[in-house]
Amino acid sequence: MDYNITLIPGDGIGPEIVREARKVMDRVGQIYGHTFHYKEILMGGCSIDAYGVPLTQEALETARESDAVLLGAVGGNVGNSRWYDAAPDKRPEAGLLAIRRGLGLFANIRPAFLYDQLADACPLKQEIIGNGFDMVIVRELTGGLYFGARRTETIDGVMTAVDTLTYNENEIRRIAVKAFDIAMKRRKKVTSVDKANVLDSSRLWRKVVEEVAEDYPKVELSHMLVDNCAMQLVMNPGQFDVILTENMFGDILSDEASMITGSIGMLSSASLNESRFGLYEPSHGSAPDIAGQDIANPIATILSAAMLLRFSFDLDQEADAVEEAVRQVLKDGYRTGDIMSEGCIRIGTAQMGDRIAERI
Amino acid sequence: MDYNITLIPGDGIGPEIVREARKVMDRVGQIYGHTFHYKEILMGGCSIDAYGVPLTQEALETARESDAVLLGAVGGNVGNSRWYDAAPDKRPEAGLLAIRRGLGLFANIRPAFLYDQLADACPLKQEIIGNGFDMVIVRELTGGLYFGARRTETIDGVMTAVDTLTYNENEIRRIAVKAFDIAMKRRKKVTSVDKANVLDSSRLWRKVVEEVAEDYPKVELSHMLVDNCAMQLVMNPGQFDVILTENMFGDILSDEASMITGSIGMLSSASLNESRFGLYEPSHGSAPDIAGQDIANPIATILSAAMLLRFSFDLDQEADAVEEAVRQVLKDGYRTGDIMSEGCIRIGTAQMGDRIAERI
Ligand SMILES: CC(C)[C@H](C(=O)O)[C@@H](O)C(=O)O
Ligand SMILES: CC(C)[C@H](C(=O)O)[C@@H](O)C(=O)O
Repeated sequence: MDYNITLIPGDGIGPEIVREARKVMDRVGQIYGHTFHYKEILMGGCSIDAYGVPLTQEALETARESDAVLLGAVGGNVGNSRWYDAAPDKRPEAGLLAIRRGLGLFANIRPAFLYDQLADACPLKQEIIGNGFDMVIVRELTGGLYFGARRTETIDGVMTAVDTLTYNENEIRRIAVKAFDIAMKRRKKVTSVDKANVLDSSRLWRKVVEEVAEDYPKVELSHMLVDNCAMQLVMNPGQFDVILTENMFGDILSDEASMITGSIGMLSSASLNESRFGLYEPSHGSAPDIAGQDIANPIATILSAAMLLRFSFDLDQEADAVEEAVRQVLKDGYRTGDIMSEGCIRIGTAQMGDRIAERI
Repeated sequence: MDYNITLIPGDGIGPEIVREARKVMDRVGQIYGHTFHYKEILMGGCSIDAYGVPLTQEALETARESDAVLLGAVGGNVGNSRWYDAAPDKRPEAGLLAIRRGLGLFANIRPAFLYDQLADACPLKQEIIGNGFDMVIVRELTGGLYFGARRTETIDGVMTAVDTLTYNENEIRRIAVKAFDIAMKRRKKVTSVDKANVLDSSRLWRKVVEEVAEDYPKVELSHMLVDNCAMQLVMNPGQFDVILTENMFGDILSDEASMITGSIGMLSSASLNESRFGLYEPSHGSAPDIAGQDIANPIATILSAAMLLRFSFDLDQEADAVEEAVRQVLKDGYRTGDIMSEGCIRIGTAQMGDRIAERI
């Protein structure tokens, strides 16, 4: 079959990791008889440099007309980037927010688990991780503080800034349904995270999540306050199966969860809309400090391509093949620098892509 | 001298840990010739049970008229407490919010450091903690999402909830000044944490923090995004000296920071207003599951009393004596269950208070 994929290389290491993911996809196409047609668009800092905006309307339309989007990374995760002084809508990240909103990608799915072979890299002690951990963060992605009204104004000579956190029951319901659906295919546990002892939006969140839970009698639901969850992730990550939470809490907790795996260069993510369309990207950032050196780890992007095959194209067998190829290459002892450990063979970005493609 | 202290035992283990702190304070009084006068007030679940509200106006006035407040804990840190269904202003935690706001306690100071003697309890690997870590979180406590306007309403049949995140430059300035003042007495590094790539309030935050920084040329300021900070705390806690942040981010990050010390039962906190007045409390919660069993660790509360002596009463020598007594007792090998390790002597809550008081 033929599929149309929008590629967004983005900034920093984005182009080199997307290149390797494409290499692997093409190999999948060859072997399983699919044709992937790619269109590349600019987003983030590179789009600002070319067009003065982080995402053009035209680029958004290209993405909308395709079957799925594969993204490298945009902007920088660093506080003092070169876009530091820019207004939010002139920053590379605004491209990401615009595409999420523009394509209705309300469900951000971020798996965070411990790779057996990379347990050395996990920052947590063996006593804490016990038999490992394996969770999925389901983060609402198009509501909350990210998209509420905001303004900065001077009142009686005093500068005041306001952001608004809004959720309605429909927004909460659809993301809760996603979380419960995912839990049904896993260990059937949902931990819904909020700050219901303070926020009205969190109280509505709890109420709607409990309503949704009634349709899933087999799933065990519990509620956890966000501050407690930030602690529990460090103290006992094994307790979590599916974590369901709102946009800002999800931003913080999913980064914390990725980091405790010790393998953030290995974690993929999907941002889905109501149909099968999705945007797939690694959980890590654009790492401008190592861009262009052929040392970045492309595995998270390659595994994001596997998620794309599975979720948007229903190509389970092909997705399995990519995931299996990654496991094999790790077993063979190949590592990029970020996951290097004693006795392994250190290779670069492009070589890693080659090894994985060969294993398909 | 004579000092008036308001005691708030609160809920759960609160009463038993406050009792031990009072024991230690009284011993300090005896030796150094001070008289501490105590008034007890109810706050939290116990106040709801007695008066139907988490904090009466009269109790607030008692606190206001005293020189400092020592608090055990209120409510429960557990999502499914018996107040679960109550409206926010009818929950135990509302007492805490009311006293913070009522007494203008805008500066929450939470030290988080690794105890040499308790390094075993730290969930992070030795490679990560290296030579230990020692930071202070300075959290804004009377603004932001916690105290902004909120409402839940039905619009066209759809339930919608709104919370508001507001900061003005004066609120930001005074907490930034606190953080820089604290940094001047430490390693002279401030990491200001925000989400300036999304929020207007965070952009104002950065601007004002940079203005304040100009008055402290010796302090090194950096900015970090909140999601990145949640990662960095796990990956490299040693990089932090003073973390400065707004209310909700501070709630999440300070709990995460306490947890990575592995000794949350050992960490104290202070909530200060513009004068010398403050409320002092342990960083941990009310632990209702172990209440009344004489097994809770009173050390965080005893160290909070030491902070009280230092910050509100200027009794540095006395505060040092309390801190030194705690160190001695740990050196002697006494431990409550939460910090127990091989070869140590396990004792209960009251015994721990006795041992520390004896060492003054
Ligand atoms: C770049 C930024 C706007 C974004 C977010 O906060 O959502 C990022 O941190 C993420 O998690 O995808
Ligand atoms: C009990 C709750 C309202 C409170 C907060 O969120 O501030 C607590 O978590 C804390 O950190 O003191």
